[in-house]
Amino acid sequence: MTTPDAHPLDDLIQALRRLPGVGVKSAQRMAFHLLQRDREGAATLARALDTAVQSVQHCTQCHTFTVGRLCAICQDEGRDAARLCVVETPADLAAMERTGAYQGRYYVLMGRLSPLDGVGPRDIGLGDLLARASQGVVQEVILATSFTAEGEATAHAISEALKSRGVHVTRLARGVPIGSELEYVDLGTIAHALSDRR
Amino acid sequence: MTTPDAHPLDDLIQALRRLPGVGVKSAQRMAFHLLQRDREGAATLARALDTAVQSVQHCTQCHTFTVGRLCAICQDEGRDAARLCVVETPADLAAMERTGAYQGRYYVLMGRLSPLDGVGPRDIGLGDLLARASQGVVQEVILATSFTAEGEATAHAISEALKSRGVHVTRLARGVPIGSELEYVDLGTIAHALSDRR
Ligand SMILES: [Zn+2]
Ligand SMILES: [Zn+2]
Repeated sequence: MTTPDAHPLDDLIQALRRLPGVGVKSAQRMAFHLLQRDREGAATLARALDTAVQSVQHCTQCHTFTVGRLCAICQDEGRDAARLCVVETPADLAAMERTGAYQGRYYVLMGRLSPLDGVGPRDIGLGDLLARASQGVVQEVILATSFTAEGEATAHAISEALKSRGVHVTRLARGVPIGSELEYVDLGTIAHALSDRR
Repeated sequence: MTTPDAHPLDDLIQALRRLPGVGVKSAQRMAFHLLQRDREGAATLARALDTAVQSVQHCTQCHTFTVGRLCAICQDEGRDAARLCVVETPADLAAMERTGAYQGRYYVLMGRLSPLDGVGPRDIGLGDLLARASQGVVQEVILATSFTAEGEATAHAISEALKSRGVHVTRLARGVPIGSELEYVDLGTIAHALSDRR
């Protein structure tokens, strides 16, 4: 895209390609757009990236993204500690919250089991989850992983491990369309699947 | 995607949405990917954006992106100053260069006429182009704008303005598939269209 003396532009294109789903043509278009029409947007994005990298960490209790040691939900003593909902990502947690149908607590796997991608039990924090669910406070673990092959396999693995420790485990009802990612499902369906959990 | 206390993550998602073609779901996925799996990539992108915003400017002669006052092509006295090729973007210039079939100079519009988007003659630097082409050095202006409706309209407007000033104008031959963007065309087709220019 650039003349030989314009290395900063090539560097920007290469850096943009590290974003998921962005190939070389998309990266060129993004770089062109930012430099030609939205330099303020480029500066804003640079600042947002720096700030997020420096300040966003994992909640020590539920593992979701947060800026402090504990996220707002884990700090909220009004939430029902007897119920623990297991989701894959912070986006899934947000979708669950938007239903307004759940007052319990969360555990965010930050992924799902995917042997082909090298994502194993340790990567989703399975040990921490089992420890937390086995301490006697949690009465029910609600598995709200995606209804995809990997999400189902993850739910199955967690379910087996928890049941062997005598923990009561439920799964969102199959009202959630098979093959879909939770964050894309309409709120009414999620709410219904929650009340129908088995 | 975030709990209420995690503003830096929301800021990052909003900033990512300023990239062309990135909606809220894509931005969430990008933010999750960067923070969960590639924080080094996020820091690299932040630096690349800052550096590009600070150092990349327009060549004073051809208007392409460059880090100095003049780009490498405009500085190269071995290039044929009698021929001036008009392209829409730096990516189109790079595609033309990769054919190896052109030894003249360039003028980069940094866009194309698009009345619906508010892009007029001034935005593509038409005045500068007419001045440069009318000084007596340029013998031929080769229009290499895209073969889309807007690219054709842009070529037509430039052609009319140049012809009224007595400048010889040619257009890349129609070997370039209709409806396509120049930067996506294979190099052989571009080279052929260049030799067949009319
Ligand atoms: Zn938490
Ligand atoms: Zn130049």
